[in-house]
Amino acid sequence: MYMNNEIVIKVGKLLDEVRNKKPLVHNITNYVTVNDCANILLALGASPIMADDIKEAADITKISSALVINIGTLNERTIESMIASGKKANELNLPVVFDPVGAGASEFRNATTKRILEEVKISVLRGNMSEIKFISGLKSTTKGVDASESDTNIGNDEGINVAKNLATKLNCTVAITGVTDIISDGNRVAILENGDKMLANVTGTGCMTSALVGGFCGVGSDYFIAAIGGIMSMGICGEIASENAGQIGIGSFHIAIIDAISNLNSEIISNMGKAQ
Amino acid sequence: MYMNNEIVIKVGKLLDEVRNKKPLVHNITNYVTVNDCANILLALGASPIMADDIKEAADITKISSALVINIGTLNERTIESMIASGKKANELNLPVVFDPVGAGASEFRNATTKRILEEVKISVLRGNMSEIKFISGLKSTTKGVDASESDTNIGNDEGINVAKNLATKLNCTVAITGVTDIISDGNRVAILENGDKMLANVTGTGCMTSALVGGFCGVGSDYFIAAIGGIMSMGICGEIASENAGQIGIGSFHIAIIDAISNLNSEIISNMGKAQ
Amino acid sequence: MYMNNEIVIKVGKLLDEVRNKKPLVHNITNYVTVNDCANILLALGASPIMADDIKEAADITKISSALVINIGTLNERTIESMIASGKKANELNLPVVFDPVGAGASEFRNATTKRILEEVKISVLRGNMSEIKFISGLKSTTKGVDASESDTNIGNDEGINVAKNLATKLNCTVAITGVTDIISDGNRVAILENGDKMLANVTGTGCMTSALVGGFCGVGSDYFIAAIGGIMSMGICGEIASENAGQIGIGSFHIAIIDAISNLNSEIISNMGKAQ
Repeated sequence: MYMNNEIVIKVGKLLDEVRNKKPLVHNITNYVTVNDCANILLALGASPIMADDIKEAADITKISSALVINIGTLNERTIESMIASGKKANELNLPVVFDPVGAGASEFRNATTKRILEEVKISVLRGNMSEIKFISGLKSTTKGVDASESDTNIGNDEGINVAKNLATKLNCTVAITGVTDIISDGNRVAILENGDKMLANVTGTGCMTSALVGGFCGVGSDYFIAAIGGIMSMGICGEIASENAGQIGIGSFHIAIIDAISNLNSEIISNMGKAQ
Repeated sequence: MYMNNEIVIKVGKLLDEVRNKKPLVHNITNYVTVNDCANILLALGASPIMADDIKEAADITKISSALVINIGTLNERTIESMIASGKKANELNLPVVFDPVGAGASEFRNATTKRILEEVKISVLRGNMSEIKFISGLKSTTKGVDASESDTNIGNDEGINVAKNLATKLNCTVAITGVTDIISDGNRVAILENGDKMLANVTGTGCMTSALVGGFCGVGSDYFIAAIGGIMSMGICGEIASENAGQIGIGSFHIAIIDAISNLNSEIISNMGKAQ
Repeated sequence: MYMNNEIVIKVGKLLDEVRNKKPLVHNITNYVTVNDCANILLALGASPIMADDIKEAADITKISSALVINIGTLNERTIESMIASGKKANELNLPVVFDPVGAGASEFRNATTKRILEEVKISVLRGNMSEIKFISGLKSTTKGVDASESDTNIGNDEGINVAKNLATKLNCTVAITGVTDIISDGNRVAILENGDKMLANVTGTGCMTSALVGGFCGVGSDYFIAAIGGIMSMGICGEIASENAGQIGIGSFHIAIIDAISNLNSEIISNMGKAQ
C-alpha cells in the first residue's frame, strides 16, 4: 500500500522549512565523520554546532533546535556530555536523534547504548539492522560498524516487526537503514527504497543520515516524517551522486553526495522519492 | 581611500615567502575542520602540525614559526595546552593567531576566551562580528558558531570602531570577517571586499582563514598585513571556487577552495584583491 | 636486480583478496586524517573501524583482522588504548602496523614510540626517513611531521642499510616512504619507485598509506609483501591522481587519490608497479 504521494509532499515541505528556518543542530558525534556531518547539515540548509565538553554540552543544547547523539568513536569523556545534553533536550522538549554506531561490537558500546536509552527519551533511533536487532535484544551479529549480511538479509516483514516492536517499547521512531529502509513509530510504518549500493563504500553515510534526520527534526514536530525526510534525502542524493560521479570513483561520489543535498528541493523529492 | 595597490603587492610578496620558506604552523584546533585546516596550509605552501597534548604542546610550538589557537570544539583537556603553547610562543616572540569560535555561545567558551586573552599575548584575533562584539563587551547575539544577522548588519563605520577599539585595547590586530572584512591594528584599518556567499555554506571556512593567517604570520613580521593576506586569500579563492564549481554544489565548491589556494599567486592577488 | 614481476603479481593477488574478504581493520589514529584513512580502506575493499577508548580498544581489536596504530595527534588518553590493543593483537597473532608520526619532534612522541616498540610486537613499521632514522638511534632532523631534506637526501644504499638494520633489530618489516620507498624485513629488500611529488602536498598520505598496509596485512601472512602492497597502491594511485587531477589543484588531487584506490585492480598494478 503506497502512500508515496503523501510522504514526498510532507518531506518536500519540511525541507523548505529547514531552508527557511536554518535550525541549529547540536551534534555530539565521532571524530571520523564529523566534518561530513557538519557539511551535510549546511548543505541541507541547517546550521550545525559540535560541542562535547561536559562544561558546555547542555548550554549548547539549550540554544539548539535538535540534538544528535552518535557513539561512533565513543569515549568516557563524552558519555556524560551525551547524557547531560539529552536530559536538557528532554527538559526543553527538543528532539533527540540517537545513532548507536557499532552497538553490539563491544561491551562498552552496549552498556553506553543501554544507559543512553534509559536516561534519555529518544525521538528517533536510527541504525543498521545489526544495531537495531541488538538493541531489541534479538540475536544479531555485527561487523564492526557495519551490519552483518545475515542480519540485513532478513525479509521486510520481519524487519517491520523489529522496527515496530522497538518503536513501541521505546515510544519513539525507529529507523533501520539499509538497502531498504524501514521506519516506524509503532503505529505507522514506511518502507523507503531509494539509495545506491555505493553509499556503503563511503564512511559516515549512516552518520550523515542521522545528522540530516536531526536537521528535519529541528523544524518538524512529527519525528516519524522527519526521520523519513532525512533518510529519503540521503537515498535520493545517493542515486544522484551515483549517476553523476559513480563512474569516477568513491572519492568523487562522496563529494557528489554533498553536492546533491545542497541542490535538493521538493520537486526532486517528489519526482524521485520512493516510499510505501 | 583605497590603498589597494600597496596591500595587494605586500600580500603577493608574503605569499611568495610562504611558498619559499614553508613555515611550520602549529595548530591547536577543533576536530570538525582540522583536516581542511591542514590541507589549506599545505595548499598555501606552509607546513601544518597539529598537537594538543599538554605533554608536547609547548615543545611543538618551540619548533614552529606560528601558533594558531581555535576553540571550535573546546574541551578541558586542551585548554591547558593552548595556554602553555601560547606562553611558549610569547616567550619566543612567535606570532599567535586566536580564533574564538562560538565566543558568546556558552559560559565555557566565554570564560576560556577571557582566560586565553588574559594569559597569552595574541598577534591576530580573527572572528565573526558576533564573536568580536562579545569579546569587546558589546551587546551581541550569536547563532552557535555563526554570526547573527543583527550583528552582521551593523554598518562599516561601526564595525571599524569595534575592530579599532578592541585592537587598541588588546594591542593586537583584530580581524572581523563577514561579507565585508574589517581588519585593524588600532592605527591602520583595511576593508576587504572579496569573498562569496557560498563560503558560509561550508563548515570551517572561518577556521581555514585563521589557519591561512597563521601561515602568513609564519613568514611576516607585520601581522596586520599577514592577517589581510590570509583573509584576502580566502576571499579571492572563494570567488574563484564559486566561479569554477559553485554551480555544481557545496561539496565541489569546498574542494575548489583548496584547489584555488594551491594555485594562488601574486598575480591573481594583484588582479583580484579588493582592499580599501 | 628487478623482481618487479614477482612483486606486482603478489600484490595484485593480495588486492583481490582484500576485495573478497573485506577485512575489518582497527585504527587507533589521529583526528586530522582519520576520515581519509577510513575512506581509503573502504576504497581498497576493507572495512575500517576506529575505536580508541581503553574500555573497548582491545575488544574491537579482538574482532578485527589487523590493527593500525598512528600517533599523529598523540594524547595521554589513547596511549594505554594503543598498548592494550597492541598486546591483544599480539596475543591473537594479528598484524600490527605502527606509524610513528612525528617521532623525533617532541619528547612525548619519542617516549611513546619507544614504549610502543618495547611493549608491542610490530609487524610493519612505516615512517618517513626522519622518523625511521630517529627510531634507529641515528642522527636525524625532522620538520614536524615531515621528513627533513637532509634526511631524505641520503642515498638508496644508506637507506637500505637503515631499513634492513632496524628490521633485523625489531624483527619486523620496516618501510621508509619518500620519493623512493625502501622496504625490508631484514632479509628481503624492495625499492619502490611509484608516486608523485603532489602526495606531499596533501595531509595524511602517509597515514593513508599505513592504513592501506593494514588492509593488505588483514588478508596476508607475508607482511613484507603486504607493506609493499599498501605502499605501491598509494604510489600508483598518486600517479593516476596526478594525471587525472593534478592540473586542477590539491583539493581535486586529494579526491582523485581515493577515486584511484577504488578503481585499482591487479591489472593496473601489473602495468604500473615499479619495484626492484
